Amino acid sequence: MDNDSSSRIVEELRGWIASAPPGSRLPSNRALVARHSASPVTVQRAMRILATQGLVDSRPGVGTFVRAVRTARPLDYGWQTAALRTQPSHATLHSSAMRTAPNGTIALHSGYPDRELLPERLVRNALARAARSDAALSRSPISGLPELQSWFANELGNVTPVGVTPPTASDVIVLPGSQSGLSSVFRTLVGTGQPLLVESPTYWGAILAAAQSGVSVIPVPSGPAGPDPDELARAFEETGARAFYAQPNYANPTGAQWSATLAEEVLDVVRHHRAFLIEDDWAHDFGIDSDATPVAAHDDAGHVVYLRSLTKGVSPSIRVAALIARGPARERILADRAAESMYVSGLLQAAALDVVTQPGWQNHLRNLRQQLRARRDLLITSISEHVPQAHLDNVPKGGLNLWARLPDQTNLQQLVRDCEAEGVLVAPGTEWFPAEPTGPFIRLNYSGANPGAFPQGARTIGQALAQQKRA
Amino acid sequence: MDNDSSSRIVEELRGWIASAPPGSRLPSNRALVARHSASPVTVQRAMRILATQGLVDSRPGVGTFVRAVRTARPLDYGWQTAALRTQPSHATLHSSAMRTAPNGTIALHSGYPDRELLPERLVRNALARAARSDAALSRSPISGLPELQSWFANELGNVTPVGVTPPTASDVIVLPGSQSGLSSVFRTLVGTGQPLLVESPTYWGAILAAAQSGVSVIPVPSGPAGPDPDELARAFEETGARAFYAQPNYANPTGAQWSATLAEEVLDVVRHHRAFLIEDDWAHDFGIDSDATPVAAHDDAGHVVYLRSLTKGVSPSIRVAALIARGPARERILADRAAESMYVSGLLQAAALDVVTQPGWQNHLRNLRQQLRARRDLLITSISEHVPQAHLDNVPKGGLNLWARLPDQTNLQQLVRDCEAEGVLVAPGTEWFPAEPTGPFIRLNYSGANPGAFPQGARTIGQALAQQKRA
Repeated sequence: MDNDSSSRIVEELRGWIASAPPGSRLPSNRALVARHSASPVTVQRAMRILATQGLVDSRPGVGTFVRAVRTARPLDYGWQTAALRTQPSHATLHSSAMRTAPNGTIALHSGYPDRELLPERLVRNALARAARSDAALSRSPISGLPELQSWFANELGNVTPVGVTPPTASDVIVLPGSQSGLSSVFRTLVGTGQPLLVESPTYWGAILAAAQSGVSVIPVPSGPAGPDPDELARAFEETGARAFYAQPNYANPTGAQWSATLAEEVLDVVRHHRAFLIEDDWAHDFGIDSDATPVAAHDDAGHVVYLRSLTKGVSPSIRVAALIARGPARERILADRAAESMYVSGLLQAAALDVVTQPGWQNHLRNLRQQLRARRDLLITSISEHVPQAHLDNVPKGGLNLWARLPDQTNLQQLVRDCEAEGVLVAPGTEWFPAEPTGPFIRLNYSGANPGAFPQGARTIGQALAQQKRA
Repeated sequence: MDNDSSSRIVEELRGWIASAPPGSRLPSNRALVARHSASPVTVQRAMRILATQGLVDSRPGVGTFVRAVRTARPLDYGWQTAALRTQPSHATLHSSAMRTAPNGTIALHSGYPDRELLPERLVRNALARAARSDAALSRSPISGLPELQSWFANELGNVTPVGVTPPTASDVIVLPGSQSGLSSVFRTLVGTGQPLLVESPTYWGAILAAAQSGVSVIPVPSGPAGPDPDELARAFEETGARAFYAQPNYANPTGAQWSATLAEEVLDVVRHHRAFLIEDDWAHDFGIDSDATPVAAHDDAGHVVYLRSLTKGVSPSIRVAALIARGPARERILADRAAESMYVSGLLQAAALDVVTQPGWQNHLRNLRQQLRARRDLLITSISEHVPQAHLDNVPKGGLNLWARLPDQTNLQQLVRDCEAEGVLVAPGTEWFPAEPTGPFIRLNYSGANPGAFPQGARTIGQALAQQKRA
């Protein structure tokens, strides 16, 4: 089947349809085959596309007809304004990190690694195998495929020190992405109107999920070394919060990794306040100068609710993550997941497990580490050279981002717009602050397409900054 | 690679590991290859399985070792009792319809069609194609793949009468299953503590999602012909509700299909109360004596929020559904979906679209209709013959279920247990009532495995009933 030929036929027929009265019969498929010297399959494909676009109606055995034109009067949804009174819209939808970059732009804004950093061959093979397997046609249990639950439990168990009971497969809940886990955890372990402590700055998706679940977000300052345990303790005392959301490894956006001492101190504070640490290990597979060391490995009393995603590391189309929790908390979260989405596609779970249990996965991770290091270092060099006004608190030991502070008088919105006009996308730091930002920051992702353009991207940022100073 | 050989090696090594002290080194892969006359790949696979099961640690270049035994002290999660105070657990998790049937049982309880009713070849081919396509490695837009949005919009547009403006692709939100849609719609269009009218009996998953979102469920009686519009109007007036959840086509569990007149009357009531009709068209592809006729096709003022799923008809592993809504309501729901799960796997969306746009899909639907008819009629005949005490209000014109009323004095829980002891699974009607049931009902699914056993299943039910009468 030839897609280009189908498109050509579609284009020609669209013109014909535009000038034909509704109900007109299209030329027969046989006539179109002859006219375009195309195969019957190609013509059928063209007709299906036209039908999908709503331009024609096909009546099997009779023919294909131009669809009747519909009335195009304006629609009035004004009545909804009153009906929707019951709930304010908490959540704002659009984050810079989710924008799709037009071709040719230098995309330093994204939250996802470029395709060349994904294990493409492993993913395609795993999906092809899953398509042939039982998983393609069967329903997964609510908590997930047992083999995948085991894998996630063992990943954490393998770094659990002696004396701490490692998690078991039955502590694991497989999720359609970790965003779903954040929503469920905030809903069930915190609840509407109750306080939730979060690092500040922190992941914008967590701020979004918190807003949606109606919890009251309390920022705890977190710098290049992570949060201050005394500040954290004070926040617990002042607010009566029972939960703290954090990213102890390669935090998004700061890149901070907690030291072993800090992890132990935070865990002590959390235990003392009989609270939950919601640990988002989003960058587990993106270590560069160190490995990610989950705080959850040091807890067996159900204080840490641990989230790990495979979506960013394996493929954005394999929406698979896991949550590990123990005790009644896990039951609450599972009940919420069942009500929310019943179960996760077993096909995606089987493919994810296939990818991460292939010998090639370890090779991929080694290679990824080298690539991330080269990209990170190139972007740092480019920024130092071309944006001397920017300050990096921290060379991140892993993750995907640099977090750069700009001079205090910077007009951040203007800067972002000016860079975009020059074809360079950067994300304004504002989106990572749950309250007012403490200064003008930008987040620069070094895992996007075309790292060769990093120097040029940095030059553009530097010029836009210099322009503001002159103005 | 030979899976059976791997399993045999795993089994033997498990025995060896059980009696070996922690830290013992396993025989080398080379030794195992020789001992089992197996290929290196087979032995490597066995070792991976043991590692996944947490029984061994593999140190590359050194060897594989029996994992250290962990302390097995009991874990105490008592502190969580106080921490979890903030939110009662609304939702009960376990529905009979979600149970997996052991081999050899006669499964009349399930909510999902048996694999032999799925378009297996289309599904496997579509997944294999998607695995080779761009969709395997790219991120879908939040609202869904544009082509799939178009397809869903056109499905509804194709049955929209002249004079009503059909929906467009941009009114569609693609969902990871319709359960997610129910949760989002109840959360955003109704809201905690606010009233939601539902048919009674109605789909247990909707009752679950409503409980989870904290809305106040108000039952409106619905019989073999659907709800009474006067009752519905009264319920709107008495409660001030602004939303009604219903299944106008082949309702689960009753099988009721609303007449065109009833659909118009309900829509009038909904319009008069400036409210939403949340239409769950779950059985769109399961018509037998009629076609499903969406009420949404008669509304262009944003009153109907329409849900349609492909999961049950295409494959349980292809978790893809869509919601069609217009006006500010659609924006509210989309913001909730973004916060809840960001986006739906593009791979599953591409595969779903592929399946439903193949010429084979129409053939499949025709064949499915015949099979469902034969199965429905066989189950009805079997019930009439062997369970004369049961009363069917309605021969459903589509869907997957019979809804049978048993004699008033029936002990339903006892009946379900007695049938299960004889290898026949039936679902107690209780789960479909948002409040007290109006009588002892059972739901019998005629789309499960092995329809040849329907007479035997019916005989078992009849005997269990007769036994209660004697007791």
